[in-house]
Amino acid sequence: MSYRNVSVLITGGLGFIGSNLAIRLVEAGARVTIVDPSVPGCGANLFNIDPVRHDVELIARDCGDAETFPQAIRRADLIFNLAGEISHIHSMEFPERDLLINGVSQLRFLQACVRYNPGVRIVYAGTRQVYGKPDYLPMDERHPVRPVDFNGVHKYAANMYHLMLSRSGHLDAIVLRLTNVYGPRMTLRIPCQGFLSTFFRRVLTGQPLEVFGDGQQLRDPVYVDDAIEAFLLSGKCAAPEGRTYNVGGARALSLLQIAEICAQLGGSLPVSLRPFPPDRASIDIGSYYTDSRLIERDLGWKPKTEFQQGAATTLAYYREHLAEYLDPANPEPFCSLPEHQGVQRKLMYATVPEEN
Amino acid sequence: MSYRNVSVLITGGLGFIGSNLAIRLVEAGARVTIVDPSVPGCGANLFNIDPVRHDVELIARDCGDAETFPQAIRRADLIFNLAGEISHIHSMEFPERDLLINGVSQLRFLQACVRYNPGVRIVYAGTRQVYGKPDYLPMDERHPVRPVDFNGVHKYAANMYHLMLSRSGHLDAIVLRLTNVYGPRMTLRIPCQGFLSTFFRRVLTGQPLEVFGDGQQLRDPVYVDDAIEAFLLSGKCAAPEGRTYNVGGARALSLLQIAEICAQLGGSLPVSLRPFPPDRASIDIGSYYTDSRLIERDLGWKPKTEFQQGAATTLAYYREHLAEYLDPANPEPFCSLPEHQGVQRKLMYATVPEEN
Repeated sequence: MSYRNVSVLITGGLGFIGSNLAIRLVEAGARVTIVDPSVPGCGANLFNIDPVRHDVELIARDCGDAETFPQAIRRADLIFNLAGEISHIHSMEFPERDLLINGVSQLRFLQACVRYNPGVRIVYAGTRQVYGKPDYLPMDERHPVRPVDFNGVHKYAANMYHLMLSRSGHLDAIVLRLTNVYGPRMTLRIPCQGFLSTFFRRVLTGQPLEVFGDGQQLRDPVYVDDAIEAFLLSGKCAAPEGRTYNVGGARALSLLQIAEICAQLGGSLPVSLRPFPPDRASIDIGSYYTDSRLIERDLGWKPKTEFQQGAATTLAYYREHLAEYLDPANPEPFCSLPEHQGVQRKLMYATVPEEN
Repeated sequence: MSYRNVSVLITGGLGFIGSNLAIRLVEAGARVTIVDPSVPGCGANLFNIDPVRHDVELIARDCGDAETFPQAIRRADLIFNLAGEISHIHSMEFPERDLLINGVSQLRFLQACVRYNPGVRIVYAGTRQVYGKPDYLPMDERHPVRPVDFNGVHKYAANMYHLMLSRSGHLDAIVLRLTNVYGPRMTLRIPCQGFLSTFFRRVLTGQPLEVFGDGQQLRDPVYVDDAIEAFLLSGKCAAPEGRTYNVGGARALSLLQIAEICAQLGGSLPVSLRPFPPDRASIDIGSYYTDSRLIERDLGWKPKTEFQQGAATTLAYYREHLAEYLDPANPEPFCSLPEHQGVQRKLMYATVPEEN
């Protein structure tokens, strides 16, 4: 699987997964163009691409403004489409912002791909969130789609755009439905980006870790290098049109186990249980872990990294570059978003729950 | 099931199904408020509510502008949410227009419902289109959702909004997934509103009928009075939260049979077969007919009207009011939409197929 001299476009390439993918592709000899407007709240960080900053072209535009960079789309041999907002909490606070980012921008971007590069292979970063509360585990791709928040609805709309345009021959999309991804370059500044980000932030600032409920809910975090391997295989494979793959971690662990591994790596920080906030039930999906056998069968992909090992590497990265990822004066910022493109309207729920 | 003195809000109440529902509700003694901005291309016709024009309140606004009519939402005992664009063809020509109407406006409307009338029963007019090409027939509610056009994607996004907000207790939605509905007050002016509209238009103007392919594809048209009965039952039932029901017709007929019944009612007009336009395959779903047993079991609903009988009643209505539904000087207008709210962008497919 060679990416030498392959022209690759990465949307969301300043974000967590996108930047790791860009670095890996540059190392493999690809010609990388990044499209990323650094939308506040979505985790873009220019420092993320520091190791390859002279080797990539950066287009600081929203992927939805694709009409302003048709040449970059035309010359792409393939596209990794990772632009998006992943926060469930943000989406419940500002549903239209989430629709704009995950729906409208994706629609415009894909229309431009159909126009300027018809039939192009495009790998879309989907999410396990579309499944909602599992009927059964491990979660396979045939499970009904039943999202519990606006983020899940909009990510699934974008998922459907990709597959619909592939079934009709206008694109050649593969959708990866990722479980919780972790590793170097994930944002730590934004508290609503998931429990792993919160755990790492607390370890790095020496604070105690808190887990909701009894901590027995299962998750299967996947290390970013493993996730990137799934993207690279998807970019080059001869998979059937419109194929969807779940991408899970090496092992299912309870939230308490995950917290305890993090706490240990932080030098035996205390871990405590805390009751669920009242409205938490409406957005919580209980346990989740992935059946990744389809992508293993088709592409030979398997997660390799145990959480203990991945978390240690992650924390080592952040300790080396802490100032780029945390504001020491304000390590626990309040979960709020700046006004964004005039489309924020708060949906006035009684309580907006924090997420795990 | 009494609707006497019940306060009902109907979005899309100037359209085909909405206006028939409004008339039926006024007859039943309900207090009816209609929200309808008469979006060009969506089938609104003020004449549709002529029999009850002094008995309903009309708010000529987009349901997405719900912040301008909070009192109408507050006082509603229940909401029938029929606003939307149904044309698959329009959605492929103008995807953003479809997203605006079926996605953005619905999101805004539902946010206002949550804010001003939390927990309200809302019956949403969904569509069989979300299923795409059937894996099996008759189509039940467990079939995978796999839309073949933007209209299907966006109608399903709105479908997910309703169910997600119901699972979390913010609304009490029922989604009806309707097969092809026909009857008095459907628009005849817009050629991209489905094959039944086209067949009726041709009968009324004495033109020959054309069917694509071999005409053996099955459909199960449901007469509008039967569909309305499903809405009325859904408005009042104690169905489980977020219930979805397929609503189908009394009988599956081939397109050729349907055309021949129409042609006979028009005085033995000729019927001919015509090859599919080249790109037709990408949007065509083959045969479709409905398994309506779930709504029969839960609500006791069954379609009663045979197509021959419903089509005769429909044609009699149009013959009496033809000038309100057809421009005699221009009975076959070209399928195009006026510029709409500045969001139209044509997706440049090679060919935009006509639909059956």
